[in-house]
Amino acid sequence: MAKIAIYPGSFDPITNGHLDVIERAAKLFDSVLVGVAMNAGKEAMFSLAERTAMATEAVAGIENVTVESFEGLLVSYARQVNADVLVRGLRAVSDFEFEFQMALMNRRLDAHLETIFLMPKEQYTFISSRVVKEVAALGGEVNDFVPPVVQQALKTQVNPPVS
Amino acid sequence: MAKIAIYPGSFDPITNGHLDVIERAAKLFDSVLVGVAMNAGKEAMFSLAERTAMATEAVAGIENVTVESFEGLLVSYARQVNADVLVRGLRAVSDFEFEFQMALMNRRLDAHLETIFLMPKEQYTFISSRVVKEVAALGGEVNDFVPPVVQQALKTQVNPPVS
Amino acid sequence: MAKIAIYPGSFDPITNGHLDVIERAAKLFDSVLVGVAMNAGKEAMFSLAERTAMATEAVAGIENVTVESFEGLLVSYARQVNADVLVRGLRAVSDFEFEFQMALMNRRLDAHLETIFLMPKEQYTFISSRVVKEVAALGGEVNDFVPPVVQQALKTQVNPPVS
Amino acid sequence: MAKIAIYPGSFDPITNGHLDVIERAAKLFDSVLVGVAMNAGKEAMFSLAERTAMATEAVAGIENVTVESFEGLLVSYARQVNADVLVRGLRAVSDFEFEFQMALMNRRLDAHLETIFLMPKEQYTFISSRVVKEVAALGGEVNDFVPPVVQQALKTQVNPPVS
Amino acid sequence: MAKIAIYPGSFDPITNGHLDVIERAAKLFDSVLVGVAMNAGKEAMFSLAERTAMATEAVAGIENVTVESFEGLLVSYARQVNADVLVRGLRAVSDFEFEFQMALMNRRLDAHLETIFLMPKEQYTFISSRVVKEVAALGGEVNDFVPPVVQQALKTQVNPPVS
Amino acid sequence: MAKIAIYPGSFDPITNGHLDVIERAAKLFDSVLVGVAMNAGKEAMFSLAERTAMATEAVAGIENVTVESFEGLLVSYARQVNADVLVRGLRAVSDFEFEFQMALMNRRLDAHLETIFLMPKEQYTFISSRVVKEVAALGGEVNDFVPPVVQQALKTQVNPPVS
Repeated sequence: MAKIAIYPGSFDPITNGHLDVIERAAKLFDSVLVGVAMNAGKEAMFSLAERTAMATEAVAGIENVTVESFEGLLVSYARQVNADVLVRGLRAVSDFEFEFQMALMNRRLDAHLETIFLMPKEQYTFISSRVVKEVAALGGEVNDFVPPVVQQALKTQVNPPVS
Repeated sequence: MAKIAIYPGSFDPITNGHLDVIERAAKLFDSVLVGVAMNAGKEAMFSLAERTAMATEAVAGIENVTVESFEGLLVSYARQVNADVLVRGLRAVSDFEFEFQMALMNRRLDAHLETIFLMPKEQYTFISSRVVKEVAALGGEVNDFVPPVVQQALKTQVNPPVS
Repeated sequence: MAKIAIYPGSFDPITNGHLDVIERAAKLFDSVLVGVAMNAGKEAMFSLAERTAMATEAVAGIENVTVESFEGLLVSYARQVNADVLVRGLRAVSDFEFEFQMALMNRRLDAHLETIFLMPKEQYTFISSRVVKEVAALGGEVNDFVPPVVQQALKTQVNPPVS
Repeated sequence: MAKIAIYPGSFDPITNGHLDVIERAAKLFDSVLVGVAMNAGKEAMFSLAERTAMATEAVAGIENVTVESFEGLLVSYARQVNADVLVRGLRAVSDFEFEFQMALMNRRLDAHLETIFLMPKEQYTFISSRVVKEVAALGGEVNDFVPPVVQQALKTQVNPPVS
Repeated sequence: MAKIAIYPGSFDPITNGHLDVIERAAKLFDSVLVGVAMNAGKEAMFSLAERTAMATEAVAGIENVTVESFEGLLVSYARQVNADVLVRGLRAVSDFEFEFQMALMNRRLDAHLETIFLMPKEQYTFISSRVVKEVAALGGEVNDFVPPVVQQALKTQVNPPVS
Repeated sequence: MAKIAIYPGSFDPITNGHLDVIERAAKLFDSVLVGVAMNAGKEAMFSLAERTAMATEAVAGIENVTVESFEGLLVSYARQVNADVLVRGLRAVSDFEFEFQMALMNRRLDAHLETIFLMPKEQYTFISSRVVKEVAALGGEVNDFVPPVVQQALKTQVNPPVS
C-alpha cells in the first residue's frame, strides 16, 4: 500500500531541523510532499516563492521528496494530493500541546488523514525558524542550523548589498 | 448562601467550548454573569457589540445566565457586580500556567474573589476562538464548534455579501 | 440551591495546603465533606482512623465542614452523600494532568458530579503529604506546613516514646 | 517498500485506547506486530500468557496485525522481527516526556528503528491500564474502556468464582 | 576565581521579581551586570534610556551590581564584558522550555558562557512585566510588584499630566 | 568570595549526565562537593559504599571536586559543610516541577542555601540512572552513558561471575 505523506509548514526559512524530519519521513513513506503554506504569519522574512525555492534546493538530494506551495485549508490540500499521512516534528512540550490541538482539529475536519509525530535529532531541539532569524539579524553565525542555500539568503537579507 | 459567578473573556466569538463551561457553572451557582471584555487584543474579528450580541443569543436558553460587556480591571468589575466566584475553563497545560498566573494576580488584587477552574468536555479541548477563526477564514466548516448565531456571523465575515 | 461539595484524598497526613483548599471550598458551597479514602497506597504512614481523626481535629473550627472516611469508588460514595461537586486542589502542571484524567474518568462514571479545581496559596505549592513525611523522617522541622495535631503525631511517629 | 511496525507494551490489560492506536497503525503500515513485554512491572494483574491471549483476541478482526510476547531489550526484538517503525501512542504531556526519553534512548541503541507517535481519539485520553484496573478493583463499570475479553477477565479477577 | 555574571532582559519595566533574582545572583558571584537589551519587542512601553534608568535606580542599594544597555547578540556582549555566567530566572514550565532553547542556542554560539537558572520567591511567580503593564493600564494597583521608581513611571505613563 | 557548591543525589550509579553537571559546576564555584545520599530509594542497585566509590573514581580528574556520602536532611548536611549553593541538573519539564518543589522546600528549611539549576549537554537529556540500569539489565550496551568504572560494575552486577 503506497503511502503519501505531507509535511506542511511556513519554512521561513527551512532549517536543518526540518530537513532531519523530512529525511526520516522519506524513509517511512513512499513519497513525501513538503507543503509550503502561503501564510507565514506577520513576521515572514521571505516571500512564498523564496521559501519554496530554498526548500526545493535543500531537499534536492532526497529522491522521494517534492516541494510545493499551497494556500487554503491544509486538509483540503491534503485531500487534493491524496495524502494519507500528515507529518509533524515534535521538539518540546509546548510544541506538543499546540500540535495536538491542531491534529485533533484536522482529524475532525478529515478523519482519513492521520497525523504522525516524528522526533528530530536532539541537537536540533533548540532550532526554530524564529530563533534562526533572530540570531542572524543580530549578526550571529547560523551555519550549523540551516542548509547552505539559506545561509546565503540570510546573509543577503541581513546585509543587503550596497548598489 | 446565594452565589454569583462571573465568566470573563473576549468571546471573539463564543464557541461551544465556552458554552459547555457556562452550562456547568450555571448548575453550580445561583447566577452566572458572562462578562465580555472590551479589549479582545489586536486580532479581534468582531466588535464588542457583536461579541456581546452573539453570546447573549447563544445563552438564551439557560435561565440563570446573563451577558454583559465590561471594560477596565476584571476584579473591579467583579466587585461592582458582587461576584463571589471567577470561573475559568481549563483545557491544556499551557492554559493552566497562564490561568494560574492570572488567578494569583487576581487573588492579590482582590482576596475575596475565588477563582475556580472547570473542565469542558474532552471533545472541546481543541477548540479555541483563534483556531475557529483561522479555519473559517480558510473556508473550513466550523458548524460543530460554534453555536448557530456564530456560524452565520462567520459566513458573513468571511464571504461578505456583494452589494 | 444548596450545594454539597466533597473533597476526597488520603490525607496521610492532612497539611496546611489541604486546609487552605478546604477553607476556600467552605466559602463557596453550603457544606463540604472531607472524604478520607481507606486506601492511601503502599507508603501510608498513618492508619485510616488516625488520618480521619487528625483531619477532623484540623477542620474543627470551620462550621460547614465535616470529615468522614470512605472505601470503594469515589463516585459511588459521592452519590450516596448526594454530593454535587468534587473539589480538587491544583498546584502544578504534573498535578494538573493526573487530576484531569481522574476528573474525566469520574465524569464518565457519573456525569452529574462536577469536578472543580481550586488553587491553594502560592506558599503551599511545594507542600505535599509525601514531602512533609520525608522531611519529618529526616528530622526536619515541618511546623509551618501542617496543623498542630499533625506536628504532634509526626513527632511521635518519627521518635517513638521509649517505654 | 513494505514496512513493519512494532507496537510494544505491557498490555496489562489491553484497552480501547491501545486498540485505537493499533487500528491507526494498521492503516499506515503493511504489518503491525503488537509486542507484549514480559516484564509488566510490579503491579501486574495478569500473567504474560493472559495478557498475550487477551490482546490476540482483541485484534482478531484486523487483518495485518499479529500479537507476540517478547523479553529482553526492545531494540533487539525489533531487529529480530525486522521492524522499521516503533509505534507509540501519546495522550498527555507527561506521556510525552517519558516517551521522548525512551525514543531517544532507543534511537541511540538502534538508529535504524524510527519511533513515531500517534494520537488516540480524545475520548481515550483518560484511559490507561492502571486506571482501568483501579476502577474495576473498586467495583466500577469499565465496559466502555476495554474490549469484551478484558471485561470478562476483569470480572473474574475482581470477583473470583467461589468454588 | 572572580566570577562575572550577566543578567539580560528587556526590563520594560524592571519588577520585584527581577530584583529578587538580581539579589540572589549578587550573593553568588563577584559582580553582576544587568544588561538591558535595546530591543524590547513591539509592545515596549518605555524607551531604552528609561528602562536603563529605572533599573539603575532600583539596584542602587546592591554593591556589586551595575546596569548597562546593550544591543546585538547577547553572547557577543557577554564576551565583551568577560562574563562567565548568564543568569536567568525560572518561574514556570512555559518559561522553562523557552529558556532551555535559548540556553542551548547560546551554548552553541559560545560554549564558555554557562547559563544558570535561579528561582525567585514563590510570591513573585505570577509577576511579569507584561502583566504589570496590563494591570497598571487598567487602573489596578501594582505597588507590591514593582520598585518605587517604576510605580511613579507607570502612573505618569498611564495618566499623563495635563499641560 | 570563595563559594562552596554541593551536588546531592543517589548516584545509583553516577552517569555521564551527572559528570557533565559536575564539570560545569566546578568551573563556576571554588569547590564542589558531590553528596551521595544514603537513601537511594527501594530500587537501589548499588550500596552506599559502592555508589560513593564509583563517583569518587569518576571525578578523580577534576581538581576542585570531592565526593562524600551523607545521611539525614540535605540542608543540615549543607550547613555542616558550609555550602553556599545547591546545584541541580535540569533535563525536562517533569524534572523541573519536582526540582522546583524541592528547592522551595529547601529554601524554607534554610534560606541561606541558594539552589541553582544547570543544563547538561542535550545528548544527555535522555540519560538517567534508572534507564541506564534497565537497559543494562536487559543486556543493552550502555558504554556511551556511564564512565568506565560504572560500565565495569554494571557488567558484574548483571552477569555475576560464576564461582
